[in-house]
Amino acid sequence: MKAGHTVSSTREIDALIDMMARLPGLGPRSARRAVLHMIRKRALLLTPLADLMQTVAATARECATCGNIGTTETCDICASEKRANGQICVVEDVADLWAMERGQAFKGRYHVLGGTLSALDQVGPETLRIPKLVERVLAENISEVILALNATVDGQTTAHYIADQLDGRVALTSLAQGVPIGGELDYLDDGTISAALSARKSL
Amino acid sequence: MKAGHTVSSTREIDALIDMMARLPGLGPRSARRAVLHMIRKRALLLTPLADLMQTVAATARECATCGNIGTTETCDICASEKRANGQICVVEDVADLWAMERGQAFKGRYHVLGGTLSALDQVGPETLRIPKLVERVLAENISEVILALNATVDGQTTAHYIADQLDGRVALTSLAQGVPIGGELDYLDDGTISAALSARKSL
Ligand SMILES: [Zn+2]
Ligand SMILES: [Zn+2]
Repeated sequence: MKAGHTVSSTREIDALIDMMARLPGLGPRSARRAVLHMIRKRALLLTPLADLMQTVAATARECATCGNIGTTETCDICASEKRANGQICVVEDVADLWAMERGQAFKGRYHVLGGTLSALDQVGPETLRIPKLVERVLAENISEVILALNATVDGQTTAHYIADQLDGRVALTSLAQGVPIGGELDYLDDGTISAALSARKSL
Repeated sequence: MKAGHTVSSTREIDALIDMMARLPGLGPRSARRAVLHMIRKRALLLTPLADLMQTVAATARECATCGNIGTTETCDICASEKRANGQICVVEDVADLWAMERGQAFKGRYHVLGGTLSALDQVGPETLRIPKLVERVLAENISEVILALNATVDGQTTAHYIADQLDGRVALTSLAQGVPIGGELDYLDDGTISAALSARKSL
């Protein structure tokens, strides 16, 4: 029998455990614990979770403008006039956008690339919504593009490519102080992100 | 702002993250990753998970006989005539029952106590379904009760109490070789559980 194979007494519970075990950060054992916990807290946890998942599954979508995940064609940030301060913060991933928002330091709008350029993984500018970024810089009243990419080789390659594409059209800055080499934004505490934003430097 | 507070762009997604973060083994950060992952794998993961949770929430129940979690009044193990071999294995928790089943060494039926006796937590024999165990030993054709309790102080106190209650009525054994002192069943690999079962000793 293969390691970690699930044997409870019902097909549905086994299937639930197997599927929970496919979530990042959970394995077979923690999935079993989570499922037992949910069954015990049925009214408080299992039923509301099922309902929320159904709602999110039915409504979640990418913002057509920035790539953020929301429930409307245009996300709340892109829809808010208050966020139209002339700044666009470019991030790799929605998780990074959420990390920036937790920092509460950035008041502008975002552009989610959906990854980094990678020759190895054959990820090109089109896949990354870079043309859409250039389009937004030309169409919206943008004064500054802040690159909040991870301090990895691919992240920096992507930053240079974007700098080439936007050259001269807009002030281009990047997060500086506080972002460790090889570090990923989503792992940083909110204060570090806030400090890195305040100390951003021109490229 | 409090650490780990969730800020995505929609109320439902935030609520889903907050509720996922309440599962054992997940925190705010891993909950955010899990939710993003689920949204990206909507058809493969989020929708089926929501459906399975709904089904389990609607159908999961404790077996009236042994305390296992199933979807029927009598669980599959109690309902199976093949499992009526005269042995009852007593475990603290459904997770321990699942661990025993993964070991595939035990062919009898179970009795899930739902915890251990604890003066501190005011857990008495009634709470633990110990009277029901005595009743089963008298009513079913039981030749051996195998105590598969955790090797903790409370687990051993509970084992002695059960031994007193069943004294003379049935052969009473306990898992022996391979269960480390202070160890919990659900953490052991399947082979260890299997070895401990084969080498069980009389009390
Ligand atoms: Zn948007
Ligand atoms: Zn049962």
